Amino acid sequence: MSEYRVIGVEGLPEIREGDDLAALVSAACALEDGDVVVVAQKVVSKAEGRVRLLDRVEASRYASEISGDRDPRQTEVILSEAARVVRLRPPLLIAQTKHGFVCASAGVDASNAPESGSVVLLPEDPDASAEQIRARLRELTGLAVAVLVTDSFGRAWREGTTDVAIGAAGLRVLHDLHGERDPAGYELHATTIAVADEIAGAAELVMGKLSRVPMAVVRGLDLAGSGRAQDLVMPADRDLFR
Amino acid sequence: MSEYRVIGVEGLPEIREGDDLAALVSAACALEDGDVVVVAQKVVSKAEGRVRLLDRVEASRYASEISGDRDPRQTEVILSEAARVVRLRPPLLIAQTKHGFVCASAGVDASNAPESGSVVLLPEDPDASAEQIRARLRELTGLAVAVLVTDSFGRAWREGTTDVAIGAAGLRVLHDLHGERDPAGYELHATTIAVADEIAGAAELVMGKLSRVPMAVVRGLDLAGSGRAQDLVMPADRDLFR
Repeated sequence: MSEYRVIGVEGLPEIREGDDLAALVSAACALEDGDVVVVAQKVVSKAEGRVRLLDRVEASRYASEISGDRDPRQTEVILSEAARVVRLRPPLLIAQTKHGFVCASAGVDASNAPESGSVVLLPEDPDASAEQIRARLRELTGLAVAVLVTDSFGRAWREGTTDVAIGAAGLRVLHDLHGERDPAGYELHATTIAVADEIAGAAELVMGKLSRVPMAVVRGLDLAGSGRAQDLVMPADRDLFR
Repeated sequence: MSEYRVIGVEGLPEIREGDDLAALVSAACALEDGDVVVVAQKVVSKAEGRVRLLDRVEASRYASEISGDRDPRQTEVILSEAARVVRLRPPLLIAQTKHGFVCASAGVDASNAPESGSVVLLPEDPDASAEQIRARLRELTGLAVAVLVTDSFGRAWREGTTDVAIGAAGLRVLHDLHGERDPAGYELHATTIAVADEIAGAAELVMGKLSRVPMAVVRGLDLAGSGRAQDLVMPADRDLFR
């Protein structure tokens, strides 16, 4: 039987700016070659100092108008992180980020922020963040692992969030079956599987928002490659839902 | 460390109408209490006879017009399964099914069909299909397992498909964190995790479209409950993307 395991990395400290996430995960858990190390965006952002103090933000009139019961300064930060507002039903604001991701509040989040009155932004370049953690893990352990940076995104038409990959290094993110044939000889069309997003969701099941398990290890999948989470962004010309 | 396993069920025969999926999976694999048995929609549909022979279908003029290079009779079947066309860029047709799911071709698929010239439809009531397999597994094995019926859906704004739950029995499908507090005391809002969809995606990674692994077992998650995949359909009044 083919089989893989998903392991929550427990015992990690509260993450602060400048923390070495690779050192923390490799100390907390005996990694193996081929592992996929999944790191929640929130701790990557905190380690990278991607936190904004609301005291230093001034809300525009527009931000105040669309804030609903949210702090207008938080809305101001959301707008500053957005490349494009996709849907607005105050206080709900779905935006496309500068990276191209479409998600609630342009990925800006007040929960699990390092201090009250601050908000956490997405990493500047989550693919680079993943690559950096991967390179550092190789340096520390000599192992070839893959790294995903993940976040919880809502979906159109479906209830609830699932975790998806916003940064990736060292693995295939898309598994393309175009032109391959099923057992009956039928040629598959339009069959590209977003395996990085499926791994992200698999990891979320052991990570939890409330407990301090911001990292997981996925062991036993054979998906080494060189994809980036940027490849998961649908190009505008094929996007039916702009 | 918290940990769970995802096991592909190998050695299953080609599924035909009337096959007892519960008997097949329990013979192929030693199930345990609390397992989540994940079954690809395609085999559920085949076992239930949800297959249409295109020879018996007559394409309307409209179906022909929007078919592109797809067999117009297949388009006719897609339209008959659709409650609402969401986006049309021939031959691409995104539709909401009678169950409420939004997906390509209203879930109608020609790949892996039992014979050429036929297409496979979604189960009539996938939650009932899941419940039936679950009840039969209890009858055969005495075990309390959960069952998911899953399919590969595209997503707005993101490349590639991920598997999601279209039928569920015996487990929580949504994990609602509303009102709970993060370690810093911040109250979480709008945080409901679609755990059934994350399990579906996790299972896809061992299932594969090309090999005959249409079932998987997810072992070690503690998610017993009574949700249905219908609960994953976003109600129209909260749907920002109708």
